[in-house]
Amino acid sequence: MLIVMKKNATDHQIQVVVAAVEKKGYTARPIPGGDRVSIGILYNSGSVDAGHFLGFDGVKEVIPVTKPYKLVSREFRQENTQICVGEAVFGNGTMPVIAGPCAVESLDQVLAIAKAVKKAGAKLFRGGAFKPRTSPYSFQGLGQQGLEYLTRVREETGLPVVTEVMDVETFDMVEASADIIQIGTRNMQNFTLLRRAGKAKKPIILKRGMSAMLQEWLMAAEYIMEEGNANVILCERGVRTFVRHSRNTLDLSVVPAVKKESHLPVIVDPSHAAGVRDLVIPLACASAALGADGLMIEVHNHPEEALSDGGQSLYPDQFEQTMKKLTDIRTVIESS
Amino acid sequence: MLIVMKKNATDHQIQVVVAAVEKKGYTARPIPGGDRVSIGILYNSGSVDAGHFLGFDGVKEVIPVTKPYKLVSREFRQENTQICVGEAVFGNGTMPVIAGPCAVESLDQVLAIAKAVKKAGAKLFRGGAFKPRTSPYSFQGLGQQGLEYLTRVREETGLPVVTEVMDVETFDMVEASADIIQIGTRNMQNFTLLRRAGKAKKPIILKRGMSAMLQEWLMAAEYIMEEGNANVILCERGVRTFVRHSRNTLDLSVVPAVKKESHLPVIVDPSHAAGVRDLVIPLACASAALGADGLMIEVHNHPEEALSDGGQSLYPDQFEQTMKKLTDIRTVIESS
Amino acid sequence: MLIVMKKNATDHQIQVVVAAVEKKGYTARPIPGGDRVSIGILYNSGSVDAGHFLGFDGVKEVIPVTKPYKLVSREFRQENTQICVGEAVFGNGTMPVIAGPCAVESLDQVLAIAKAVKKAGAKLFRGGAFKPRTSPYSFQGLGQQGLEYLTRVREETGLPVVTEVMDVETFDMVEASADIIQIGTRNMQNFTLLRRAGKAKKPIILKRGMSAMLQEWLMAAEYIMEEGNANVILCERGVRTFVRHSRNTLDLSVVPAVKKESHLPVIVDPSHAAGVRDLVIPLACASAALGADGLMIEVHNHPEEALSDGGQSLYPDQFEQTMKKLTDIRTVIESS
Amino acid sequence: MLIVMKKNATDHQIQVVVAAVEKKGYTARPIPGGDRVSIGILYNSGSVDAGHFLGFDGVKEVIPVTKPYKLVSREFRQENTQICVGEAVFGNGTMPVIAGPCAVESLDQVLAIAKAVKKAGAKLFRGGAFKPRTSPYSFQGLGQQGLEYLTRVREETGLPVVTEVMDVETFDMVEASADIIQIGTRNMQNFTLLRRAGKAKKPIILKRGMSAMLQEWLMAAEYIMEEGNANVILCERGVRTFVRHSRNTLDLSVVPAVKKESHLPVIVDPSHAAGVRDLVIPLACASAALGADGLMIEVHNHPEEALSDGGQSLYPDQFEQTMKKLTDIRTVIESS
Repeated sequence: MLIVMKKNATDHQIQVVVAAVEKKGYTARPIPGGDRVSIGILYNSGSVDAGHFLGFDGVKEVIPVTKPYKLVSREFRQENTQICVGEAVFGNGTMPVIAGPCAVESLDQVLAIAKAVKKAGAKLFRGGAFKPRTSPYSFQGLGQQGLEYLTRVREETGLPVVTEVMDVETFDMVEASADIIQIGTRNMQNFTLLRRAGKAKKPIILKRGMSAMLQEWLMAAEYIMEEGNANVILCERGVRTFVRHSRNTLDLSVVPAVKKESHLPVIVDPSHAAGVRDLVIPLACASAALGADGLMIEVHNHPEEALSDGGQSLYPDQFEQTMKKLTDIRTVIESS
Repeated sequence: MLIVMKKNATDHQIQVVVAAVEKKGYTARPIPGGDRVSIGILYNSGSVDAGHFLGFDGVKEVIPVTKPYKLVSREFRQENTQICVGEAVFGNGTMPVIAGPCAVESLDQVLAIAKAVKKAGAKLFRGGAFKPRTSPYSFQGLGQQGLEYLTRVREETGLPVVTEVMDVETFDMVEASADIIQIGTRNMQNFTLLRRAGKAKKPIILKRGMSAMLQEWLMAAEYIMEEGNANVILCERGVRTFVRHSRNTLDLSVVPAVKKESHLPVIVDPSHAAGVRDLVIPLACASAALGADGLMIEVHNHPEEALSDGGQSLYPDQFEQTMKKLTDIRTVIESS
Repeated sequence: MLIVMKKNATDHQIQVVVAAVEKKGYTARPIPGGDRVSIGILYNSGSVDAGHFLGFDGVKEVIPVTKPYKLVSREFRQENTQICVGEAVFGNGTMPVIAGPCAVESLDQVLAIAKAVKKAGAKLFRGGAFKPRTSPYSFQGLGQQGLEYLTRVREETGLPVVTEVMDVETFDMVEASADIIQIGTRNMQNFTLLRRAGKAKKPIILKRGMSAMLQEWLMAAEYIMEEGNANVILCERGVRTFVRHSRNTLDLSVVPAVKKESHLPVIVDPSHAAGVRDLVIPLACASAALGADGLMIEVHNHPEEALSDGGQSLYPDQFEQTMKKLTDIRTVIESS
Repeated sequence: MLIVMKKNATDHQIQVVVAAVEKKGYTARPIPGGDRVSIGILYNSGSVDAGHFLGFDGVKEVIPVTKPYKLVSREFRQENTQICVGEAVFGNGTMPVIAGPCAVESLDQVLAIAKAVKKAGAKLFRGGAFKPRTSPYSFQGLGQQGLEYLTRVREETGLPVVTEVMDVETFDMVEASADIIQIGTRNMQNFTLLRRAGKAKKPIILKRGMSAMLQEWLMAAEYIMEEGNANVILCERGVRTFVRHSRNTLDLSVVPAVKKESHLPVIVDPSHAAGVRDLVIPLACASAALGADGLMIEVHNHPEEALSDGGQSLYPDQFEQTMKKLTDIRTVIESS
């Protein structure tokens, strides 16, 4: 249930309502909006008596919420959530691009790629220090050293960095180094990790699970928000289907579908969906025209020697040309 | 196998090679290209002696073909196939839009919608006279009368019409009325119907099957081409997945993937993929930016009263605004 | 809607009700049950006044039907439909096995296999004369000659034969030769073919479509029943999923799910689901224990030389051992 | 690569080979078999010189391994792995049944259910103390108290207990209480958790991921084995497909397919696949006939009041009847 306060409700009135909610045994969570505050009621197992709260000073209306998710819902917060990192804003109608290699391999590699993608217009750098790999015998990432290289990237280029966290054990370390923390596809329902992410001070990119339904994905974001971290960016990266011409099937319709249900920004990762370089560029253009709140694209200076996912990484000059196309498409979209 | 003739090969030289192929018990199919002719060899069960044909006058080279499809393959024909209908060209880098209601319901309905979509820039009109319906108790289309209404649409608006054929029995009737004949998702592997379509004098739109892999789809097109009809337009319309936020999952990556494998034009139907109006416009924009060779969009003047698929049909004014957006996106794409 | 007659209702009373239904503009379809007759009302677009019919002599009750399918529904007919062909009964708790090669290749081949499978306990013989093939260049079946060989199989072994029909054009020919007519996966929603099957005098095996939902499959059966052919046997043969260890994913849970919704018998084809010989036997055993109303298993005397699907065909001695296992499992199931 | 020692190879000879492998910079892992020892070579990035090892005393042969997984592979170990817990053996041709409620709710509840399922023939008890739930607002399990109740179950009934672990933080606690530790579907690729499970002294049940391919599942098991825990039981529980008549699609063909590739036991959980009680019993029977190495079935004394997954839980008397059926089927299977 959602208690919507009047525009001119005072802090005191809000505190009184919060106290009343908690006295009933529920959890109250104030949600600041553009021009008024709402108060979400969590953990009510049965129905809550709406009339009870209507009588309080400063209360405008009480809205029953029928969705299984609450904090992520547009019913709770009508304006888009905007998340600012460096020069990038996710959720304000622009489309910041995050670019970089799948894995951090060496300092030279990340610096070279970071300079190239920055020049082409990328607003953030990505690179994996801890890599979830299907096989225990595959390259698992450089770990802490990889994080240090990312710090160097930030120092030398000014680009904020995005990197994946795989577990609670290494979360502090990743949080200290990253500007945005990514939770990967395989961990979308690692609820312990989600709860820890909810306590982080950095924004979270939450990738969609391999076969997650829209509602499950939003529920995973709810776990993070419920712990107090409101800065969640959702990332579509393709779902598993019977199809064999691409590694996963990029489900672009999920982007407008999520935006209808939720106020959170949604970005697209065409690289992991495609799995092959030739498909990445058209899918990036499609995502731009669709209205995605950002893109995440793999770029490698020597894809043929990459330790992970080289086949889907763009060459720096391909990326540069793609950025021009994306900018043009976006200009059209924003003006129409 | 493919025998590539020299640019200046004479008709006589081509005839000699064809005769030699057929003498071996195979079928020869000459494939005119931009500046030279190739000759496909069909029905060779085992390997064919390439050297045998290299010796003929006018033969430039002999290429073994490893794909299971032949006539549809880019190995057989490198240039894009271009299919011209009325003012529309599919396959030349433009993106003609086909628009209209799911089903023909009345003369007034189709005329009103046709005038609206023409004004907005649609190049062809669509409307089903014979409707494949999951339930025998659902509206099955107006049949022959529906075809007559479509003829009236062409007469009054000048728009060529696209309509679906469901069986061999009504094929002649549909072929006489339609400018492009559509074969629907459920019939993608109705091989008897495909063979009949191969004998038609009109272009065919071949929709992708509900769970067809790229190769199966191209093979279905091969059935049509193999009977002699080279004018096949492929249409992606979403595949069936676990997803529930859209009726089907629009698989946009199949468009560039098909274009790599085949010279045939590929268009996109976002309406059937989405199943709900709100998703159609962003998916149409995405398809435009991706480089689709055309779009097929459902438009209805009274969607709430439609006898079929009203919920996914755009209102005429929505369609008009969408067309402006699509034109802008296309201008950017074509110039970049 | 369903009008349930009293046990002792006379033919005259039934006729009066039928006439009254049709006078209202609906279609009445009497459905004989074990000890009473029900009358289904079809083509009522809106709601029908139940009270109107309750007043007639011999009427016990009037039941609104909420499912989109009617004639196939258990609400319409509570007892299992039993379909008798030769010594086999589908739907009475036994599990007749249909066995034979994917395609009829020669008279010697079918006679040899038919004798072997009959000896092992198969009750019907299967073999394709008309083959739907993904590629136009694959073996398409022997056609009419294949049907003649099947007739010889029946004459020499006494086994009824099952063979696939691909189109309306060849339906008469297939119907004349077959004891059961099969409609294949790719034609499950070929509605013209379904309607023709509804006019046939022979039972129909309706295979489930590649990605058909339970309701779509039952609706396809409804098309057949609605035209007057009540002898429909449903056949689960695997659905298309992301899985790669078997050709399709055998969805055994659909068997009890269908039996809850419908009175029609459901058989299982483990061969097409598996795609590899090693998986066929365990899946056949599983189907037997599950309560399937029959099995369809591919057997070939020289699988390595088969013109179609050899890799999934059992050797005759494997089939014989499997039949023993199946019989033992079935004995346990029936007695428990 | 796999080095197969002669039957009469001495411990010393084995040690010499191990030392030689490690000197080369690889990891050697001795794998005791029925009558001989093999030595697996791990972490060789490129090819290893087989000839080098052939010269050592006691070496019979050196086999290159082409599968991406090693320790789980039948190429590494030909005999079935047998895992003994209490009276149950997984992998020796019998089919122990694990039964109990989805979640531990109270001491009374678990004791009542445990006594009922023991009487019916279950060999192990299951019950979740830590529950992974899609929604943060759903019942999350009793946690440590739940584990204590499970300990009471073991003490009072003698049944070993199976319970799920969700993270590394609570692993020690779960390991101390459980006889078998379950890793759930959503954590199948939580690689940090898998590594911790690899250090556990208790057997692990590794449930298949929602859309995991056979190879990914075996790779997840490889993570566990690679850390030193050889007691891994794989559990099929249905995969996500477009189907809506069951919660997941039980993929029974994966059982024989896994057994061909791997020596690990494979059990089936029909309850989570079905999602509805009516489907559980036929799917359990099918699994028994298929040759599953065990079953995991949800049973609840008051399903209608269950805090989690009540709709798919059997009533105790249903379970008892099912156990009789399963025993009969198994008797037939084992004797044939």
